[in-house]
Amino acid sequence: MNAKSIIQRKRDGARHTVDELRFLIGGALAGRVADYHVTAWMMAVFFRGMDAEETADLTRVMIESGDRVPPIEGPVLPVDKHSTGGVGDKISFLVAPLVAAAGVPVPMISGRSLGHTGGTLDKLESIPGLRTDLGAARFRDQVQKIGLAIASQSANLVPADRLLYALRDAASIVESIPLITASILSKKVAEGARALVLDVKVGSGAFMTEPAQARRLAESLVRTSAGLDLPVRAYLTRMDHLLGRTAGNALEIRESILALKEGPDGTAADLRELTRVLGGAMLELAGAAPAMEAEARIDQLWRSGAGLAKLRAMIEAQEGDAAVIEELSLLPAAFRTVEVEADQEGIFCGVAARAAGDWITESGGGRLAVGMPIDPTVGVELLREPGSRVERGDPVLRLHLPEDADEETVTKRARGWIRYSESAELPSMILEVVG
Amino acid sequence: MNAKSIIQRKRDGARHTVDELRFLIGGALAGRVADYHVTAWMMAVFFRGMDAEETADLTRVMIESGDRVPPIEGPVLPVDKHSTGGVGDKISFLVAPLVAAAGVPVPMISGRSLGHTGGTLDKLESIPGLRTDLGAARFRDQVQKIGLAIASQSANLVPADRLLYALRDAASIVESIPLITASILSKKVAEGARALVLDVKVGSGAFMTEPAQARRLAESLVRTSAGLDLPVRAYLTRMDHLLGRTAGNALEIRESILALKEGPDGTAADLRELTRVLGGAMLELAGAAPAMEAEARIDQLWRSGAGLAKLRAMIEAQEGDAAVIEELSLLPAAFRTVEVEADQEGIFCGVAARAAGDWITESGGGRLAVGMPIDPTVGVELLREPGSRVERGDPVLRLHLPEDADEETVTKRARGWIRYSESAELPSMILEVVG
Repeated sequence: MNAKSIIQRKRDGARHTVDELRFLIGGALAGRVADYHVTAWMMAVFFRGMDAEETADLTRVMIESGDRVPPIEGPVLPVDKHSTGGVGDKISFLVAPLVAAAGVPVPMISGRSLGHTGGTLDKLESIPGLRTDLGAARFRDQVQKIGLAIASQSANLVPADRLLYALRDAASIVESIPLITASILSKKVAEGARALVLDVKVGSGAFMTEPAQARRLAESLVRTSAGLDLPVRAYLTRMDHLLGRTAGNALEIRESILALKEGPDGTAADLRELTRVLGGAMLELAGAAPAMEAEARIDQLWRSGAGLAKLRAMIEAQEGDAAVIEELSLLPAAFRTVEVEADQEGIFCGVAARAAGDWITESGGGRLAVGMPIDPTVGVELLREPGSRVERGDPVLRLHLPEDADEETVTKRARGWIRYSESAELPSMILEVVG
Repeated sequence: MNAKSIIQRKRDGARHTVDELRFLIGGALAGRVADYHVTAWMMAVFFRGMDAEETADLTRVMIESGDRVPPIEGPVLPVDKHSTGGVGDKISFLVAPLVAAAGVPVPMISGRSLGHTGGTLDKLESIPGLRTDLGAARFRDQVQKIGLAIASQSANLVPADRLLYALRDAASIVESIPLITASILSKKVAEGARALVLDVKVGSGAFMTEPAQARRLAESLVRTSAGLDLPVRAYLTRMDHLLGRTAGNALEIRESILALKEGPDGTAADLRELTRVLGGAMLELAGAAPAMEAEARIDQLWRSGAGLAKLRAMIEAQEGDAAVIEELSLLPAAFRTVEVEADQEGIFCGVAARAAGDWITESGGGRLAVGMPIDPTVGVELLREPGSRVERGDPVLRLHLPEDADEETVTKRARGWIRYSESAELPSMILEVVG
């Protein structure tokens, strides 16, 4: 067996054996297989694909490449939720505490900002003192003890994914369904999740703009997980407009704390719907609530303040200043803000996610290259609820500006992000369910 | 512009600009573009292809990567012939001297054995003392002075091809039509050829077993050459049976000298037909003879001994011992030979090229890895002309054995290479003409 013949088999449309995948991935990590073999092979995978069993084999081989978080014990399955990335997506900060409050362990390994979308870890780190680099042992112990942790991937968790992802990124092979599938599932299994809810974003503000693409990914994830003893359900959800009332690192933490404090009725409608549905699915897959009762259970924990208490416990366990929960002004804030007015009358229906996300990234709220520092204060805040009628001149947005921003330019640009509709009725955020 | 975006454009089916190709190929040679970029890009080219103009651009960019042989002057165009590789293919040793004898310069850069096929340079080097590493200046001067040279590619002739070929070979991307096209044409233009005749071998003994594949390559070569001011004609020719009466390095040189001595009538029918057709096409494309007269002119030069004289001049210019022409026993010869008898009666129609070529390679007459020494003496010799009737027990082949061969095993194996037919009529070697 050699790399050349393995590449040729995939190039010509063959199905890999698990031994071939082990030779290739193990060899690449050990330096016996060259990077130029790996990129040629991945480009062949891009064109030829992999079936579900093959993708499950790849996932297993990737998991084997490093350590696994020691099993989390308990009467229900540890469950995670994964999003493919959107703008204003703060669902993790709501569902992780709410699901943990129901007694379900939530081991959540998250990422940093990518492209126009924010990163869960970047957002969380706007809480003063909070650490996300816990290491596998501490991560596992925290989940076992308080029921949740949101942390970065430790160095030896799926090192194969780190290598493959770096090469996919460098050689334009990011968009391969089986490679995305194995990347997501390998990390989830290695972190200790035994069930998984996927939030596959679709629309102009998502990485996948077409439902057909997103459906293919969702189906691949669900089919592949069947071979991994990992119950998975995938939701295709709308990502055309900024989610909730804010986008930007500290602003989203602020909105999340407020949402957990004020309960579902005080929360933006889109964020409320997704928190209920995704949180309910997590309880159901974990075996903690029957399907018919799961969303109501989320609502009850939300109204009771149990979710907020779990968030507090997590902030404390990760060395953050939990006083932010009472005193939101402890969060970093921009020195300057500016309001943006509607330039027409009509029904306000949201803010174009992609355009707003691009501005936040450019303004320092995201990263244009790995390792760059970010500015947690910049962001966009909605001053009106989507679905409400606005008159020309009504303030609709508040921009939280970076120091060097030119107000006039930014305001003019932001006016173009405002979306108007004919109807006050807002569509459901859920497009489809797979699995 | 960067490698990542160039790869993505090809991956998604775009057409490259010449600047993109220059960035990629120039960058790869300068070390600014990584090997893992190059293999990912070439695998995308394998799946997406390139149009003729794009392939011509790639060819030009590859030529620019190194030196070019200084122009060869004269009233007619310098012309080369290129074969995609077969077993027993000694046509170059006949057509190069014959075409040069007509006053047409023949600058021929050749290769070494590859897989089951022999290499022109390996064969030529079985002439005692003969050198094939001439360097660009000496190569050009020899062609200018005596009309022909057959030599190896000098170090700085199309270095881009050396790099791309090594990576294609390592990462299983050899079989891409546009990459093969640019590889062949870039070397031909850089060596000083201004017209080209292609012998695209098709059949069980060729790299392309199907006429459809071979036709695609031939069409790509002809269409691409239109953008390079290089008249090209491609012949699809049969390669199921060993060509001529011998296969093996020294045996083929011996057969070539005998063929030039004895003229067309004393030469194997298949070799005679291809020498006339391909040699005639070379004269025609060079502008040295009208189409109607070209083959007759080859015949006349062949019968007159002018071809043999040119071969002698070339051997002398390349420091070989030209006494081999009179004294064939100066060529290296095997210590042991064994005859193989027909195991049935019927009409003998040839020897399976692939099987015989594999045996020669395994026995040391070819290379299993780059740089290995070869044994010039091993080979296969036909004792009967294809088309003749044989009885069971008639000797049909003579095997020239390596020292360690087990006669019984080899004889049994070789008996399986003999092909029988129903008819004594042999088909034409030419399947199709493109261009």
